[in-house]
Amino acid sequence: MWVQREIRLRPRPRGFHLVTREVLEGIPELGDVNVGLLHVFIRHTSASLTLNENASPDVRDDFEAYFNATVPEDARYWTHTVEGPDDMPAHIKASVLGPSLSLPVAGGRLALGTWQGIYLCEHRDHGGPRSLVATLSGE
Amino acid sequence: MWVQREIRLRPRPRGFHLVTREVLEGIPELGDVNVGLLHVFIRHTSASLTLNENASPDVRDDFEAYFNATVPEDARYWTHTVEGPDDMPAHIKASVLGPSLSLPVAGGRLALGTWQGIYLCEHRDHGGPRSLVATLSGE
Amino acid sequence: MWVQREIRLRPRPRGFHLVTREVLEGIPELGDVNVGLLHVFIRHTSASLTLNENASPDVRDDFEAYFNATVPEDARYWTHTVEGPDDMPAHIKASVLGPSLSLPVAGGRLALGTWQGIYLCEHRDHGGPRSLVATLSGE
Repeated sequence: MWVQREIRLRPRPRGFHLVTREVLEGIPELGDVNVGLLHVFIRHTSASLTLNENASPDVRDDFEAYFNATVPEDARYWTHTVEGPDDMPAHIKASVLGPSLSLPVAGGRLALGTWQGIYLCEHRDHGGPRSLVATLSGE
Repeated sequence: MWVQREIRLRPRPRGFHLVTREVLEGIPELGDVNVGLLHVFIRHTSASLTLNENASPDVRDDFEAYFNATVPEDARYWTHTVEGPDDMPAHIKASVLGPSLSLPVAGGRLALGTWQGIYLCEHRDHGGPRSLVATLSGE
Repeated sequence: MWVQREIRLRPRPRGFHLVTREVLEGIPELGDVNVGLLHVFIRHTSASLTLNENASPDVRDDFEAYFNATVPEDARYWTHTVEGPDDMPAHIKASVLGPSLSLPVAGGRLALGTWQGIYLCEHRDHGGPRSLVATLSGE
């Protein structure tokens, strides 16, 4: 069984955002899969997806602080600066965190740990809506 | 063909640990797959999985040293500190390295390179046992 | 439907290289898949794969500059130095960026965003040819 759906995420401010519910609502066929995998892919190079703590909002704030400190906008080695100071750091962050998640499905549900949630990582100041492709396979 | 198994890893000290053999023993059906993929997923947000050099233990020590230097426990921007100084750095490391591996299967075996082994990356001081979900698909 | 192919990439200098076309030429069966996933895996621990901007070469130069600054060859904590100063940093970069990509397939083509291309990330000074395993599944 293969199902593929496009999921459109509304614009978010720069930072890390919990989107587990939106992803699940975008691929309701997941309820029919007993054993399988859900692949979620972001079709952009300046935003990314990751899995992390779904409870405390300060964890998501600390992600933003950490990545801003570690991938600084004012580093002297950037040469690709035509699209603004947030652009090249956004590309780096996107590759460090990655463009996709593969998640196990068991008994019609994601088999995540208790504390795991899907983050949209918006690395641009004004990233606009973001497009995901969800691909579900299993039986 | 779809098979899914839970694999329980015994507690390990903070650091990087080779667990290839334990993972393979946990999903013996891999021997029946001619072409496919093995997906290994960790159900935690303060430990992760990666693939790296399976020979020298000093490579794994250097991973621990690098990530401790790069994601410092005493950074002044952490706000999520209620669970101890190792907690928020553990969340960051977990997302940088990622919660899953997808590995090709060929002729009943993982089609890894000669030097590739599966690391459990334990980012907490006292992480306890860790739970994996192994999902095997193929023909 | 499952297809698996080995793809041999010619030696590249240290740095980030667009290889989307070579990957696609190596797995022509992708044109027969209506809905599916392409998994591309690198069988090495000192090179990696990522997805990023496929237009400006200066983005790829900035990736090289960023990772050299962030994973320095002369860090005093390296102990695994027998294979040269570029070796241990290469292992770290390989795990940060990751050994594989899973990409959605729709209507016989990769469902990538307009600006997304596959990078071979060559982290060694003289890495030699690199071997990929491409695994295609779908219907």
